[in-house]
Amino acid sequence: KQIIRKALTEEKQVSTKTSAADLVTETDHFVENLIISVLKEKFPSHRFIAEESTAAGSKCVLTDSPTWIIDPVDGTCNFVHRFPTVAVSIGFAVNKELEFGVIYHCTEERLYTGRRGQGAFCNDKRLQVSKETDISKALILTEIGPKRDPATLKLFLGNIERLLKAQAHGVRVIGSSTLALCHLASGAADAYYQFGLHCWDLAAATVIIREAGGTVIDTSGGPLDLMSCRVIAAGTREMAMFIAQEIQTIHYRRDDEN
Amino acid sequence: KQIIRKALTEEKQVSTKTSAADLVTETDHFVENLIISVLKEKFPSHRFIAEESTAAGSKCVLTDSPTWIIDPVDGTCNFVHRFPTVAVSIGFAVNKELEFGVIYHCTEERLYTGRRGQGAFCNDKRLQVSKETDISKALILTEIGPKRDPATLKLFLGNIERLLKAQAHGVRVIGSSTLALCHLASGAADAYYQFGLHCWDLAAATVIIREAGGTVIDTSGGPLDLMSCRVIAAGTREMAMFIAQEIQTIHYRRDDEN
Repeated sequence: KQIIRKALTEEKQVSTKTSAADLVTETDHFVENLIISVLKEKFPSHRFIAEESTAAGSKCVLTDSPTWIIDPVDGTCNFVHRFPTVAVSIGFAVNKELEFGVIYHCTEERLYTGRRGQGAFCNDKRLQVSKETDISKALILTEIGPKRDPATLKLFLGNIERLLKAQAHGVRVIGSSTLALCHLASGAADAYYQFGLHCWDLAAATVIIREAGGTVIDTSGGPLDLMSCRVIAAGTREMAMFIAQEIQTIHYRRDDEN
Repeated sequence: KQIIRKALTEEKQVSTKTSAADLVTETDHFVENLIISVLKEKFPSHRFIAEESTAAGSKCVLTDSPTWIIDPVDGTCNFVHRFPTVAVSIGFAVNKELEFGVIYHCTEERLYTGRRGQGAFCNDKRLQVSKETDISKALILTEIGPKRDPATLKLFLGNIERLLKAQAHGVRVIGSSTLALCHLASGAADAYYQFGLHCWDLAAATVIIREAGGTVIDTSGGPLDLMSCRVIAAGTREMAMFIAQEIQTIHYRRDDEN
């Protein structure tokens, strides 16, 4: 864990130094390579699933082997604009079970951690999700997702419309799935849902939310499938199931599809 | 200004201590009364326009007299949910001209200041808006506004749809008009627009954005009317005019209407 913290400190300097769009991929690559090389040295037999490696053609399949699941820069669009909502996310799974997660909020020096059976923390402060079950008292988070065709936009905006008509207090879009999920874990929001995010956005946050007492499920209402590119997370099961009933599915390709 | 800083420090303690919905108004009142009483002692002849006083029936009319325009807790819904995006905003106008503005981000200890002719700063770092003129490279901020009837929601979501169809990089909704305007002033976003905000959300931010080199206009494309409850702010005049042409008007009552 200390290794990760060290890497994250180094990353932060990178994140705040660069700004133009074409530098982002460089930063993404740099941070990803840094994390993987440090971890590989310590754990030579482990497997890695990471955003840039996958983009470069690595297979994105979760096996029973110990696997690190890494998003080097979550909130890339924010990062390009220097909008200060950017994170590094690292999850770890064994036998397809998520064991721990670490998320670092790069501009606010907040480190979120969670380990199965041992609770979730933000800078050593214990996290606890909201206990809200009533949509009319709920703050909901979501993200737009990568597809922007007219049919997808209609579904995306239609889902927000349904939740606001159901009297949700508000809907927020902050531009980082990972940090939105951290807000959920800390009780600052009551539910999060998204279509079109990836396993590296979800892996670390899922452990943290569950250890903070929350529910992470598939948008169908069934169990979470880390590779399905869709999720509902909430403080309570009732809230998660309410969202599942309200929203319409936006179809995305699975992470493990070829 | 030191008085404000001191008041703001005190406010912060209040903001982080309380959490339930019925305490918010207490906090709003407490903070507003604190600010007004400190300022009244120092400037007994000045006038005040403030959110809670207006809600309690005070007239909301801008005269030529020196006037403080105050939002004690911007981001009230966030505040209720302990979503850490909450600010205090204080603007000052003489002869109906905005002279300076101070905005304090309560959880991140960022103080935004601007004074006419003397630049804008965040914790003494000079602010500079984005120079972007191309919507397809733009990050846009907006807020939902208080009205939630079906017709308003259709217009609100339709405006987001138009901007995403025009290939905007993204649209963010963070739940605080004031802090969204501060992101704009710092160059972290390229445009902001909203219907249904108030003069106390706008007064301080307008000075800060103009002093950071930005444009603040009416949603019609004409000059800003502080009492009209609507605004477009952008780093460049081209970007502001593009937004003005794209979005459809959502009607709200003026702040100075009886």
